[in-house]
Amino acid sequence: MIHLKALQEWLVGSGLSGFILPRTDAYLNEFIPARAERLRWLTGFTGSAGVAVVFPNKAALLTDGRYTLQARQEVNGCEIIDSTKTTLAEYLAAQGSGIFGYDPALHTRKDLKAWEDKAEGRVTFNPLVENPIDALWNGQPEESVSPVRAFPERIAGLSAAQKIVLIRQDMKGAHVQAVLITRPDSVCWLLNVRGADVPYTPLVLSRLLLMENSCQWFIAPQRVPQDVRAALGAGVTIRPPEELEIVLRGLGKEVVLGLDPARTSLWFYQQTQATIKDFKDPCIDRRAIKTQAEQESMREVHRRDGQAVAALLRWARESRDYDENDVARKSEVLRRDMANDFVSLSFPTIAGFNANGAIIHYRPPEAGSARISGQGLLLIDSGAQYEGGTTDVTRTIAIGPPTAEQMRHYTLVLKAHIAVASARFPEGTTGAQIDALARHVLWQAGLDYAHGTGHGVGVFLSVHEEAASLSPRGQEAVKPGMILSNEPGYYQEGAYGIRIENLILCVETGETDALGRKILAFEDLSLVPYDHTLIDERMLSAAEKEWLAAYEARLKK
Amino acid sequence: MIHLKALQEWLVGSGLSGFILPRTDAYLNEFIPARAERLRWLTGFTGSAGVAVVFPNKAALLTDGRYTLQARQEVNGCEIIDSTKTTLAEYLAAQGSGIFGYDPALHTRKDLKAWEDKAEGRVTFNPLVENPIDALWNGQPEESVSPVRAFPERIAGLSAAQKIVLIRQDMKGAHVQAVLITRPDSVCWLLNVRGADVPYTPLVLSRLLLMENSCQWFIAPQRVPQDVRAALGAGVTIRPPEELEIVLRGLGKEVVLGLDPARTSLWFYQQTQATIKDFKDPCIDRRAIKTQAEQESMREVHRRDGQAVAALLRWARESRDYDENDVARKSEVLRRDMANDFVSLSFPTIAGFNANGAIIHYRPPEAGSARISGQGLLLIDSGAQYEGGTTDVTRTIAIGPPTAEQMRHYTLVLKAHIAVASARFPEGTTGAQIDALARHVLWQAGLDYAHGTGHGVGVFLSVHEEAASLSPRGQEAVKPGMILSNEPGYYQEGAYGIRIENLILCVETGETDALGRKILAFEDLSLVPYDHTLIDERMLSAAEKEWLAAYEARLKK
Repeated sequence: MIHLKALQEWLVGSGLSGFILPRTDAYLNEFIPARAERLRWLTGFTGSAGVAVVFPNKAALLTDGRYTLQARQEVNGCEIIDSTKTTLAEYLAAQGSGIFGYDPALHTRKDLKAWEDKAEGRVTFNPLVENPIDALWNGQPEESVSPVRAFPERIAGLSAAQKIVLIRQDMKGAHVQAVLITRPDSVCWLLNVRGADVPYTPLVLSRLLLMENSCQWFIAPQRVPQDVRAALGAGVTIRPPEELEIVLRGLGKEVVLGLDPARTSLWFYQQTQATIKDFKDPCIDRRAIKTQAEQESMREVHRRDGQAVAALLRWARESRDYDENDVARKSEVLRRDMANDFVSLSFPTIAGFNANGAIIHYRPPEAGSARISGQGLLLIDSGAQYEGGTTDVTRTIAIGPPTAEQMRHYTLVLKAHIAVASARFPEGTTGAQIDALARHVLWQAGLDYAHGTGHGVGVFLSVHEEAASLSPRGQEAVKPGMILSNEPGYYQEGAYGIRIENLILCVETGETDALGRKILAFEDLSLVPYDHTLIDERMLSAAEKEWLAAYEARLKK
Repeated sequence: MIHLKALQEWLVGSGLSGFILPRTDAYLNEFIPARAERLRWLTGFTGSAGVAVVFPNKAALLTDGRYTLQARQEVNGCEIIDSTKTTLAEYLAAQGSGIFGYDPALHTRKDLKAWEDKAEGRVTFNPLVENPIDALWNGQPEESVSPVRAFPERIAGLSAAQKIVLIRQDMKGAHVQAVLITRPDSVCWLLNVRGADVPYTPLVLSRLLLMENSCQWFIAPQRVPQDVRAALGAGVTIRPPEELEIVLRGLGKEVVLGLDPARTSLWFYQQTQATIKDFKDPCIDRRAIKTQAEQESMREVHRRDGQAVAALLRWARESRDYDENDVARKSEVLRRDMANDFVSLSFPTIAGFNANGAIIHYRPPEAGSARISGQGLLLIDSGAQYEGGTTDVTRTIAIGPPTAEQMRHYTLVLKAHIAVASARFPEGTTGAQIDALARHVLWQAGLDYAHGTGHGVGVFLSVHEEAASLSPRGQEAVKPGMILSNEPGYYQEGAYGIRIENLILCVETGETDALGRKILAFEDLSLVPYDHTLIDERMLSAAEKEWLAAYEARLKK
C-alpha cells in the first residue's frame, strides 16, 4: 500500500510545484522511529537512505547505488534515480523553475544551501509549517517515549558534570555563549543517559541548550526517573520539549549561539534572534576519544559478543536446511541467550549467501530469503547493543569446499584487514592514509570495494558514530582512544561478497619515532575466528602469519 | 657583511614599527634572480625559505625546521624562529600592537589575510610604494634579461595557440572574461618559450593577460626574437612590461578578472577596478598532465641523464681523496660532457656524507665540505635542465663496507620506494593515499621522513611544479600524464641520511577494476642503478625482487 496519490492530490491545491521528502526524522537520525517512516508510508521504499520529490503528476526517488535495485523492486509510480550520479540539488535545479515545499525539521542549512546554489534563483524553496504527510497519514504512530535510564559513570568514565565542564571549555575557545545540542546521541553521551526511542540505538530523543551558567535538557519530565535526576545533579534543568521554542525565542542578539550547520535542522535557525555562529557539535570530537573506563567496558563486551558470533558461525557450518533469515534471527537469539545485559541488535543483521553477499547493504527478507546449501560463501555482518557497549563484526565463511578463486579473494581481503590491524603510524596520520593501506593490497590485484574501510563506533550508542573515518576522504587524524571498524571487502556482482570486519581501538605504543612523534597502533576488540578453509597460506607473508597466530592465540584465552 | 643596521636606521624615521621581508621576488619564484636576494643582503641568510621582521632595535628571522640550524650559523643580530612552530602571522600578532610595512609585490592576498586574521585589528599592515631595501642596497644587481628562446612544439606537443584555446575554455567554465597569469612558469608553458632569468629554471620573467579575444604578453619587445614571434603568431601581442599597469587600470568594473589569490602579488589587486574573482592559475592543472610528446621527450632525456648519474656514482665509488663539493661539481661536469643539450643543473646538487646526509636540504659549502673517506653513506640528490626536459634523481651509496643497520635502513627505504613505483590504483586515488603506501613500510619499523614522498616536475621547466603532490596533505587525484618524484627517505640525525628518488610518470594500465574505474600505475623515468651492497635481500618479498630485476633489466638496454 503506497500513498503517492494522496500527496499528489494535496499538492494540486497547495500552490507548490512539488514536495521534497527525505528519509530522516527531526533529529536527523540514521535509525528513525516508526512515526518518522514517512518515506516508507509514501512510497513503500524500505532502504535507509533516500529522498522523494513528488509532483502532482510524477514523482522521483533518489537513492544511492546500493539501494537503486531495491527501490526499483519496492516502489511503483516513481522514477528511481541514482543519487551518486544525480544529486538532489542537481535534480531540483534541472526542473528549470517552480516552488518546492519542504519540512524545515528534516533538512539542514547545508542541504538548503546546496539546492539554492545549484538552482541559481530559478527554483525556489518554501519551508512548510506542517509536514503534509502528518496530516494525510491515518494511523501514524505516536512519538516514542521509552523509559530513560542512567548510563553508569563507572562505564562512562566521566560524570555528566565533568563532561559539561569540558564542553564549556570548547564553547569558550570558540567564543560562543550558548550551544544547542540537537543530536540525540550527543545529548545521551553528554548526560550519561540511554533510552529506546528508536530501533538499534539506545537513544532518548531530546535536545539540550548549554550556556555558561545553565544547562537545560528538553524532555518530558515524567520520563526522567529519580536515579537519573540524582546523577545529573542541580547543574541540569529538565524542561518540557515544547519550551525549547520559547527559550530560543527569548535569546537576544547579544547572545552568540553555536549551531552546527551540518547537523541542525533548519527549523531551529528560524526560532531565534540570537547571533548564530557555525559551531560543530562539540560532543562529537570529545565522544570519539573513549575514556579508559569505556575502553575497558568495550573490551569486556567484545569478549562475550565474540563467543556468541563464534557459536553462530559453528551453527551455520554445522546446520542443514536453513536460510539467510534464519542466520539473522540466530545472530540475535545467541547473543540474547549468552548475555544478560543484551539490549538489542545494533543494526539489522546482514546475512548474504553467494550473490546476495555482493549486495553491500543486503538485508534478508523476512520470508523467502535464500537457502544456504551446496557450495558458496556466506557473509554475516552483525552487531549488538549491550549495556556496556556496542559491537559490529563481519565474517565470511565457506559453505562446502571453496573454489581457488574464492580462496584467493578471501586471502586478499584478509591481507587488507591485517594491513590496518597491524599498522603502526605516527600521530597525525589521517584516516585516508590508513584507508590506503587496506586498499593497496586489493589494488595490486586490480580489486577494490565501494565503501569506506572503517567508521567510528559508540559505547552503547550509535554503531555508526562520527569520528575519524578510514576512507579516501578521511581528513581527520586517527587518535588514541578512537574506536573504529576495520572492514575491507571484495564483491563480485552476481557471485559472492567477502567482508572481514573487526572493531579496533587506536592505542599508543609507548614508543616515539625519530621525529619525536608518538607511534600509534590498533588493538583488536572483536574476537571471532577467521575461516581457515578460505585462507591460502602461501599468499601470507611471515609477518601476516605471525599477526594471525597472535590474534588466534587471544581467542583461546 | 650584513645590513640590518641600515634598515633599522631607515625604520626610525619611517613611522613604521617594523618591516616584513620575505625571501622571494615579485614573481613569487622558488629560485630568484640576484636582484631579489634582498633577505640575503639584509641578514646574510642563504636558505631558500625565510622571512625577516625588522624593528628599530631588534630583528627576527623565521624559517622552517630544515634551515634553523643554518640560520643560527649564518645570521647575527636576529632572533631565529622555527616557522613550523610559530608562524609569521602568530609572530606578528604577538607583537600586540604596531604598524608593519611590507612590499605588496612580495606577498599574496592569502598572506595578508592570515596576518590580519591573527592580529584581529591590534596590529596593522601598510603596503609600501617602494621596497626600502632597493633604496639602501648599493650595487643591487640589475634585472636579468636573458635571451628568450622558443620551446619546440615538437617537444611541447601543443602550440601556444592550442594551449590558449584550452585556457579560454577554462575561463569560460569559470565565468571570467580575463585572467592575469603572474607566474613565469605558467607564461613559459603557455607560450612555449624559455629563458634564463633565474638560476636552475629556464624562466622568462614576464606576465600575461588573456582575454576572450586578446592575449597580451608583457615583456621587453627587444627580448623576443623573430622565430619566437613567428611561432606565437598574430594571436599574441607583445607589450613592454610597464604597460601592464596601464592595461590593468583600464579594465572597468564590467570585466570579471580572474586572479589566483595564492599565486598573485597583492600589488596587482591594487592596480585595477575590474571585478576580481578568485581563479586558480588555469595553467597549473593543464600543465600537470604532460602531452605524449612531452612524455616521450622526458623518457629520452632521462636515459641520457641516467648514464651521467651512473657514471657519477662509479666515479664516487672508485675515487679517493675527494669531498662533497667535488661530487656536486662532478654532477654538473659529467652531465655537461655527455649531453650537448645540457642547459644547467635543475637545483643545487645535494651531496651529503654521513651526518650531512641527514640534513634534508644540505648543500655542501664551496670550500671545506666534508671529505669522503673511511666508512659511511653518501647521499647524492641532483638533477638537470636539458632542452628536452628536467631531471631530479637521488641515490645513496655505501663508502666502504656498510653496517647491518645501514643496510636495514637502506632496504626499508628501497621497499617504500618500490611500494610507490609498483603501485596499481584506481583513478581518483589521491596523493595522500599513495604517500601512505611508502610511509607504511617505514612506519612498521617506527621510522618516517619529514618531507613529502613526491612533487610534480616540469618539462624543461620548474623541478618543483605544482600538481598532485604525494604527501599526507595531498588531496588531489593522481592522474595519467602526471610526472612526480618518488623519494622516500630515512634520516638519522648526526649519523647518515638515506633517500632514493626516481621521477615517475602516471600511466593507464589499460585495465579497469570491478567498479569500472581505470587502473593506473607508474612508469619509472629515472634510470640509475641502486647500490646492491646496501640491499639486504632477505628483507625483500618475491614481488619486490621481481620489480627490482625488471627495473635493472631496463638499465642494460
